[in-house]
Formats: sequence, C-alpha cells, structure tokens
Amino acid sequence: MRGAPSPGAYLKRTALSGAARATSAPLLSLEKQLLHPGVKGLPITAPLPQGAIGAQQWNVLRADTSFPVAVLKISAIQHNLEWMRRFCERHGAQLAPHGKTTMSPQLFSAQLANGAWGITLASVTQAQTAFRYGVRRVLLANQLVAPADIKAAVALMRQDSGFEFFALVDSSAGVARLSQAVTRLGLERPLPLLVELGLAGKRAGCRTMEEALAVAREVAAAPGLELAGIEGYEGLLTSKDQERDHQEVRDFVARLADLLRQADGEGLFTRERILLSAGGSAYFDFVANGFAQVKGLSRPVLPVLRSGCYLTNDHGHYQDMIAKLNAREGVTPEQGLRPALEIWSMVLSRPEPTLAILSMGKRDASYDIDLPRALVWHRPGAAEPGAMPEGCRIEKMNDQHAYLRMPADAAIGAELAVGDLVGCGISHPCTTFDKWPLLLAVDDDYGVRHAINTFF
Amino acid sequence: MRGAPSPGAYLKRTALSGAARATSAPLLSLEKQLLHPGVKGLPITAPLPQGAIGAQQWNVLRADTSFPVAVLKISAIQHNLEWMRRFCERHGAQLAPHGKTTMSPQLFSAQLANGAWGITLASVTQAQTAFRYGVRRVLLANQLVAPADIKAAVALMRQDSGFEFFALVDSSAGVARLSQAVTRLGLERPLPLLVELGLAGKRAGCRTMEEALAVAREVAAAPGLELAGIEGYEGLLTSKDQERDHQEVRDFVARLADLLRQADGEGLFTRERILLSAGGSAYFDFVANGFAQVKGLSRPVLPVLRSGCYLTNDHGHYQDMIAKLNAREGVTPEQGLRPALEIWSMVLSRPEPTLAILSMGKRDASYDIDLPRALVWHRPGAAEPGAMPEGCRIEKMNDQHAYLRMPADAAIGAELAVGDLVGCGISHPCTTFDKWPLLLAVDDDYGVRHAINTFF
Repeated sequence: MRGAPSPGAYLKRTALSGAARATSAPLLSLEKQLLHPGVKGLPITAPLPQGAIGAQQWNVLRADTSFPVAVLKISAIQHNLEWMRRFCERHGAQLAPHGKTTMSPQLFSAQLANGAWGITLASVTQAQTAFRYGVRRVLLANQLVAPADIKAAVALMRQDSGFEFFALVDSSAGVARLSQAVTRLGLERPLPLLVELGLAGKRAGCRTMEEALAVAREVAAAPGLELAGIEGYEGLLTSKDQERDHQEVRDFVARLADLLRQADGEGLFTRERILLSAGGSAYFDFVANGFAQVKGLSRPVLPVLRSGCYLTNDHGHYQDMIAKLNAREGVTPEQGLRPALEIWSMVLSRPEPTLAILSMGKRDASYDIDLPRALVWHRPGAAEPGAMPEGCRIEKMNDQHAYLRMPADAAIGAELAVGDLVGCGISHPCTTFDKWPLLLAVDDDYGVRHAINTFF
Repeated sequence: MRGAPSPGAYLKRTALSGAARATSAPLLSLEKQLLHPGVKGLPITAPLPQGAIGAQQWNVLRADTSFPVAVLKISAIQHNLEWMRRFCERHGAQLAPHGKTTMSPQLFSAQLANGAWGITLASVTQAQTAFRYGVRRVLLANQLVAPADIKAAVALMRQDSGFEFFALVDSSAGVARLSQAVTRLGLERPLPLLVELGLAGKRAGCRTMEEALAVAREVAAAPGLELAGIEGYEGLLTSKDQERDHQEVRDFVARLADLLRQADGEGLFTRERILLSAGGSAYFDFVANGFAQVKGLSRPVLPVLRSGCYLTNDHGHYQDMIAKLNAREGVTPEQGLRPALEIWSMVLSRPEPTLAILSMGKRDASYDIDLPRALVWHRPGAAEPGAMPEGCRIEKMNDQHAYLRMPADAAIGAELAVGDLVGCGISHPCTTFDKWPLLLAVDDDYGVRHAINTFF
C-alpha cells in the first residue's frame, strides 16, 4: 500500500483540531475495510482494502473506473473548507454544518478540522453514525419525538459524558414527551433543547412568538430538560420574488433574536452560553449579519450557522444561490465557493443523431431541483476534456440511464461516440450524496487519490 | 437468538430450487453481520447481529422501531412471488426479474426459489453484487461499454464456469469494443449477446430492423462473441393515450419476433436456445402473449420477461398499471399483485390546524412519479390503525420531512398528534428501495420478523 494517502487526506492540509485527531481511529477502520466488487464506480474484480485505492493510480479521464462514478474534487473541497472558516471568523459565527448533506465521516472530520463547532444532523440514526466516527457535538436540527430515538440519543449521551447533544422542540406535547422520557430513563444531565420558531405555511416550528415563548417556559420548567437556545430555518423562503425573500429572511432572523431576548428577559436560559441557530446554504450571510446584532443579554450568545451544501456547492440551484451571496458579500466568483461534486458517465448508445444515452440515472444523480448539467465530454486517450457545446442538455433520466440531447446543428452530434465520457455537474448535493455509498476524491487531473464513505 | 427466523424466511415457504440452496452461505453471512447503531429504522443502541432482529419482537405499531422505517409485508411478497410464478407457467414464459428494483440478495434468492430463470440487472457492479450472493445467471439489460465493466464481467465468467452472463448490444461500435476486449482478455468461452431493438425517440436500441439485423450479423461474425437472442424494452411506451400505448407495445413485440425470425433465417443463432426478452412491470401480459406466438424456428425460443416491480407492486403508478393488467387478464384486484412496501413515519410537529410534519422525506420515499400516499394513521397503544380520511395527502417533501395536508373540515385535523404514526404507500419501488440499506420484513400485524438488505 505504498503511495496510498493516509486516511482523511484533507486533514493533512490544515492544522488538526483536537476533535479531528480523536476521530482518526474510526476513520482508519474505514481505510482498512475490504471493499467488495459491486461498489458503484470501483473497477475491482477482487476485494480491495479501501486504503489501497490511491495506490491503484486510477484516472477517471483514462476510463480506469467503472461508470457512473461520483467524484469529489479535492482542491475545491479544500478551498470551500477554508472559505467557510474565514467567512465564519469574519462574521463572528460558529459553524455546525448540516451533516445530512454528505453523511460522510471523512468530510465531517475535515469540517471539524477546519474549525466547525459541531455537526448538525436531521435524525438520531444520523447522530449515531456521526458519534460512531468520532463526532462529539451534535445539533439535531429536528424535533425529537420517537421513543426509540429519544432512548438512542440518551444512550449516546451516556456513552460519552463529553458528548454534547442538542435537539429542537416546538410544542407542549413535544416538551412533555421529552421530559417524561428522559426522566423515565434517568438521564444524569439535562437534555439541552432549542425552541424552534417556524414560518407560516412552512415546516415545523412555533408560528407565533407567544407560542414559542410558552414552549420555552415549559422547557425551562420541565424536569430533565434545559433551554439551550432558539432555532429557526430560513432556507424555505424561496419564492420567485427574490427581494421579498431577502426581506422575509431578515425579518425572520430579527424575530429569532427577539424571541431570544424575551426568553432571556424571563431568565429562562441557565447554561453558560445561549445558542442562536439558523442558516441553510442560501442565506447564511443574512443570518450571520443578523445574529451579529444580538448583544447585551444576560450571558454570551453563540451564533451557529448550519449550511451543509457550502462544502461541495453544485452546478445548479446552490451555485445560483451562492453567486447571489457572493455579490452581496463583494466576493468575485473565483474567490467564492467552488463546485466539487461531479458525476461521470459513459456514452452507451447513440441511437439517434441528436441523442446519446449515458450510463447514469436517477440512482446516480439528483433530479429533485434540476436534472444534471452536462459540463464536458472526453474521449479516453485525448489530451483533455472539451466543454459541452451550448444547447446540449440532459433532458430526461430513467432509473439507470440519462438522455443527453444535442442540438441538431451542433458538430458534437456527429462526433460523440459510444465509449466517450460525459462529466456532469449536479443541482442539490443532498440528493446526490445519498445515491453513493462511496465517492472517489480526485486531484485536478481526475487522478483518484482516496475514497470518501457515506452512511445513508 | 432463539426465536429468530432462519435467513431468508421467505424461502422456507416454498420448495427451494437448487439455485436458492446454493445461495444460503452468503445469505447466512448477512444474518451474522453486526448492525451498528445508525441504520435507518433500527432502534438499537449497541451492535446487533442481523439474525437476532426477529427475536427482538419489535412491532412498528407499538413504535418500537426508529422512524422513518421501511417495511415489507411478508404475506404480500409471498403472494406476489407465487402469483408471478403461476403467471409465467400459464404463459409459457421464463422470468428474469429486474434486480435493479430491489438490489436485495434475500429477494433475489426468494425470486429464484420461486422459479425465476435468472436475475436481470442494469450494470456490472449490480451483477457483481448478485454474483457475490449466489446468483449464477444474469441478464444485463444494458449496453456493456466501459473497459472496467467488460473486464469485471469477464472476471465473473472466469470465477465460475457455470455463471451465465448475457449483455445487450445495439451498435457496430459496441460490437467492436466487446470483441476486442474479450479477445484481448482471452475469455475462454464466447460472450453471449442480445441485440437490442429500440423505439424512435426512446432509449437505447437499434431504431430499424435493418440496423438491428446488421448488428446481429456483426455479433455472429465477431471473434469472442455469440448471438444469444433479441431484446427490447416496451416499458417506455407510456403516453396519455392508453389505447395507442397498448397498440404500440403489441407492434413492438411483433417487431422483436420478426427480427428474431429474420436473424434465425440467416442462421445467426448457434446456441441451444434463442433468447427473446422484453417486459417491464406494466405490459408483461402483452409481451408474454406476443412471445407465445413465436414458433417454428431452427431451435427452441426462450421467452424471458423482466418485470422488477411485480415483487412489491406499489400504491401508485404500478398499482394503476397492474389494475389494468388484471382487467386484461380477468383477474380480480384481490387475486392480483399486492402492494408490499410501506414507509412509516411519525408526526413530529402540528404547526398549523391542517398541517402535520412527518419524519420522512426525499431520503426515504420515492418522489419521481408521485409523492407517497398516506394510507393509515395510528396512535401507538390504540387497537389498530385508522384509514387516512379522504382528502389527506402528502403535499410536499424536503430531504428529511414530509408535509401531510388535511382538509380544513376533517376531524383528523384536530385529532392527529405529535407522536402518532402515519403509514404511507409509495409510487415506484425502484426509487424507494435505493433509499434503504435495510428494510424490515413484517407480518400482517406489523411485527418485525427479519431484515432485508439492499446494495446500491
């Protein structure tokens, strides 16, 4: 295995935090695991230790891998890690990136090594996976309701007394269930909760300040619970009217701060610091700016952003959102977050002059916001990939196939051949990561350096 | 582990075929594997051997599991297995069910034990997984193009000389690539190929009889290859005009038969039997009836259907398609295929009078054809689930949440509470299975009997 990178090659590039070092043993176990033939993208005919992948010197452009294959560009990930660390430092915010996006131990570890305060997750099973791979501070950005899930969260808190776990609550019923459960389970320390403020017509969360304040009082008074902070999610404010969305985001952030002030005024917070959390991947600048105004409370406020998609960005929805954020922040596109995730597939069939059938489908690339975007094509052996001409687009996907439609007058219609490669960007990292148990981390020449695992 | 069902509990209910018995060792390895906390649906706080799941006596209606959880109804699966075996016997067809639907070793094994001739798959990595778990006859219903994939297929053929592997081809370029690759790899036996006939405007496959016949001649003449049969996929013929779709399906099946007759007339087939394959999950009766007419050739014809979704059916698109098939076959709904796959989630929040937020989302249930259908709701401890009232529907899903909208005048709007369960049917099994590494097989009372693994 000489030449194979050590586990978590990203981590070598930045100073390791204590949290990241502590995770090295579980990450090592992933490098030692045997990968069996059958893993998407891997060109293996016998079991291979994961840590030996780099030594194989596969190159995607040489078509060494199986196709489709999901690749993560190491340089873009590294750039984005550093970009977000600087952003948070500049705005005085902490980052608990939403781990549901990638569900990847190596990426969690890289995020923690690059200054993340903790990892946000959406379910207790996700928290269990993060815990297993060394994450010791989890913000469950979701209501915690199912008895088995409450029990599992309590078990993690017991397994390591240093494990910090926060969850949301938005109803009296939720407070009562949690209080009864942790009391029955005899949890040795209070369960810290954030009251979720919601938006009319949107997802969970109290709809009024009065409701939210009432829930906050109940949490503060309930046996076994403690009020840790206030939470909201502004990311659902996406309409066709961008200016209105922006104003609503700013208003919502101001209401979160108001709620926090009122709860603090009633003396409901008892922990050392008060958590104030919001911030998906589209408007985290508004959130950070709004949170920075929250001062003069009974104790320090910890503003926690939760973007998950900053890490890979994309070539669709989030790229557009980030372009707007860049403009607001005065950042050039080159300086901003870079797309890091691509799906490469092969031309399987050229059944009609303007149609190519590709070896990827709904099992391989997200399709919930937009279909994948064909970026480049490449004939293995050629010097380098060529840009996909204007007008070429993925017009449809079946489970295992994509339909690349080319304009009738484009030269590529005659040129693109069975066996050529097509590199696609995606729109929405969350629904692409969850289609790949293993992604390949590549250098700028598409040389495969190591593997990234996901657990969905 | 007393009380735990033996691996592949389905298999005990029907006579085991030789193929199924041969798979018992790899299936046993799945029962012996340790499941770690973090697997969706499992309410575990410490590692548990998979084979011990039945002995835990979890019941979904008691909310013993984590939520969301994916359940497979054992009785419905068993019914569907037997239904399809009888259907194929009646029509004189063989079944190579499309394994991409479930990618589940236990379900492959149950299908083979219930008379399936082989397993259809969409990629070589899928074939590698099936091979690993004992499948020894694979129809790759796809073009085989990537060098790594050709090499991997050849490796499987070498690993077991009894492993039968068939792939498709639809172009001269494809024939040339395959012939060169298997010659270079020195494959000891010819690679059997089916020529794919396609449909104008649809996916892969030769667009004309002349093209298809030319490719068939090339396969027959190419070193290292042999012409095994003719293939098509009629399942893409779904427009708003059902009568026209049906006529086009019948026409297409007739053209497949014509092509086969012409290729046979030229003496291009040399194997003992000629494969003739089509048949997704919507029109397999048309295909079987059409194939039954193909007689009087130089050697026996083996008609192979490939439906993948018959095994679980669904509560949406395929249920509708199967209802129409039932009507054509003179089968009552009760006698027909049953929906076997459900996703159960919990009410996390009741933020508005007509809205409930559920703990499942795009990571858990298919959304590519229709959103999930809310079937029942249940309060753990109550006698039994109640039907979801008319007008209640999942109106939206985010990655991890579903929005259940209830009519303003429905009593359930006041009744449904945080902690209640909602059982949903899905539309499109393929894009639900791929969201679950592990599903729970349940009896008719939602008692959990054993686990079903998937490998995506």
